Amino acid sequence: MSEKPPVLLVYAEGLNRQLVTDAHRARLAGLCRVLEPEPVPNFDDPRALPHLDTVEILLTGWGCPPLDEAALDRVPNLRGAFHAAGTVKNHVKPACFDRGVRITSAAYANAIPVAEFTVAAIVMANKKGFRAQRLYREVKGFRLWSKEYPEIGNHGKTVGIVGASRIGRMVIDRLQAFDVDLLVYDPYLDAAEARGLGAEPCELDDLLGRSDVVSLHAPSLPATRHMIDRRRLGLMNDGAVLVNTARGALVDHEALTDELVSGRIEAVIDTTEPELLPADSPLYDLDNVFLTPHIAGSQGTETRRMLDLALDEIERFVRGEPLQHEVRREDWDRVA
Amino acid sequence: MSEKPPVLLVYAEGLNRQLVTDAHRARLAGLCRVLEPEPVPNFDDPRALPHLDTVEILLTGWGCPPLDEAALDRVPNLRGAFHAAGTVKNHVKPACFDRGVRITSAAYANAIPVAEFTVAAIVMANKKGFRAQRLYREVKGFRLWSKEYPEIGNHGKTVGIVGASRIGRMVIDRLQAFDVDLLVYDPYLDAAEARGLGAEPCELDDLLGRSDVVSLHAPSLPATRHMIDRRRLGLMNDGAVLVNTARGALVDHEALTDELVSGRIEAVIDTTEPELLPADSPLYDLDNVFLTPHIAGSQGTETRRMLDLALDEIERFVRGEPLQHEVRREDWDRVA
Repeated sequence: MSEKPPVLLVYAEGLNRQLVTDAHRARLAGLCRVLEPEPVPNFDDPRALPHLDTVEILLTGWGCPPLDEAALDRVPNLRGAFHAAGTVKNHVKPACFDRGVRITSAAYANAIPVAEFTVAAIVMANKKGFRAQRLYREVKGFRLWSKEYPEIGNHGKTVGIVGASRIGRMVIDRLQAFDVDLLVYDPYLDAAEARGLGAEPCELDDLLGRSDVVSLHAPSLPATRHMIDRRRLGLMNDGAVLVNTARGALVDHEALTDELVSGRIEAVIDTTEPELLPADSPLYDLDNVFLTPHIAGSQGTETRRMLDLALDEIERFVRGEPLQHEVRREDWDRVA
Repeated sequence: MSEKPPVLLVYAEGLNRQLVTDAHRARLAGLCRVLEPEPVPNFDDPRALPHLDTVEILLTGWGCPPLDEAALDRVPNLRGAFHAAGTVKNHVKPACFDRGVRITSAAYANAIPVAEFTVAAIVMANKKGFRAQRLYREVKGFRLWSKEYPEIGNHGKTVGIVGASRIGRMVIDRLQAFDVDLLVYDPYLDAAEARGLGAEPCELDDLLGRSDVVSLHAPSLPATRHMIDRRRLGLMNDGAVLVNTARGALVDHEALTDELVSGRIEAVIDTTEPELLPADSPLYDLDNVFLTPHIAGSQGTETRRMLDLALDEIERFVRGEPLQHEVRREDWDRVA
């Protein structure tokens, strides 16, 4: 067995208490020579300076500074940067690929809680749980709830998935266990692939008109900005539910707010545009909106799963095995 | 092929629009001779009277009157009563078994939405979605949510299932897809069976002390009344969540209200004692309570699944095949 490669942890220090368990520390120490027990926020940190010539592996996380030419010049022996978070675009720069530094992402692990939250939101929305809970607080008495919400229930509902992304596919996969009809829109997915996932391929306008719940899982790109615009919101059925655990920019929020204020549709919204809504936004208070503050992604204990994945990748690297979550230069346009 | 057996529909008329689709009507007409197209509420209904001597099969539902000696005397050719709802105890009487009338229950179909709702509630509670949503409405601004709720997240949580009932088992089964540790308490389940379900067997007091979420799925019986009493609520961890989609009588609500008012624990409550809480109950308004008005069970579209099951059983009966959801005299103490 070869000598253990020297590793440095580079991420915002505040993360550490949540992210790193004793089991993680023991595992990392079994795989690598840990140069500093605690993370450094950047290479200028006095605890980092003595190790820059030595370090071969970076365990990176939220807050890792850009690994550009200048940064990489300071770590001449760097062989890999293993990321314990979803988004690599903030710290990974083309210089990493130019110099053959291997890069991995924990986006797969980060997708899991988003898919779980989304499915829970869809089930609860179809049961009118969010609405019934608010109405029950107001009336504090008996109602024939099935009369208040005649179409209450998950059975036989149509759920439209916009975007067969990693998360979109996980949502489709988890919804197979339910008696719902699944539609999927994705311009890069062919009909056979869609059926293979367990969903009926569908054009976007058609999906909006047929779904009881529309759940967004498209990437946020210039081309997808406001893909759910006023016209398309107007295609949604009365009483249908828009679920957005992806990105606020996918939806024209002025039009969305108008539709929700009118009460014509419902929404479960975890991501908004802007990211923090103005304090006077009606979305905070509407009975037909379940608004959460961007918590669907990895939070608290869920961040540990991303570290598990990064350690899995470090272990494969150390053993000379193929990496499973590597980000390559050719993937760049598709990764978050 | 034998002649189609004559069938009568017996249940509360208001149900019909939600319950029965055109496809159901067509299917029933394919299996049986439908004596009256619409349901009758009881045997005294003028539409029922001409058919009592003829009818062989009852398709029953909520509101079906008791099938006791007197009632069965009026339908001398009755061979089976197929129930499109969960609870058979209101209409099925010992006389049914005495006379060899076959009985089926749609409790299996009714368990599905309860399990689905419960899993959604557990996932959302672990994500602190219910709480974050309310706090976000109040502050209408930025918070570091993972700091507000350090243990936010589903990963690595311990979920304790009280009662390996049909619904309890469905919840355990559905939670296998999540990275949670499962405990189960059931006095009638042995350790090997528990492990076979995918959960660690556990005494009730121990389960309460170890779980992040405790979900109740025990039957409501004299022996289980207030099984979650003040002492046992006190065993729950600070910040743990009690989920009750079973029956209010399982929990001492005075003690529960005290614990929830203190803010020490959280709850997702779909069933209460009394069933309709008094208007001055603090449970309506607490931030740490997600209170819904007994909607976890079959509602709206979900009632159709129970009719599907009843029609499946009628089809088996007509074909002379074994029934899959038959209620026998010897099952009586175990069924709802």
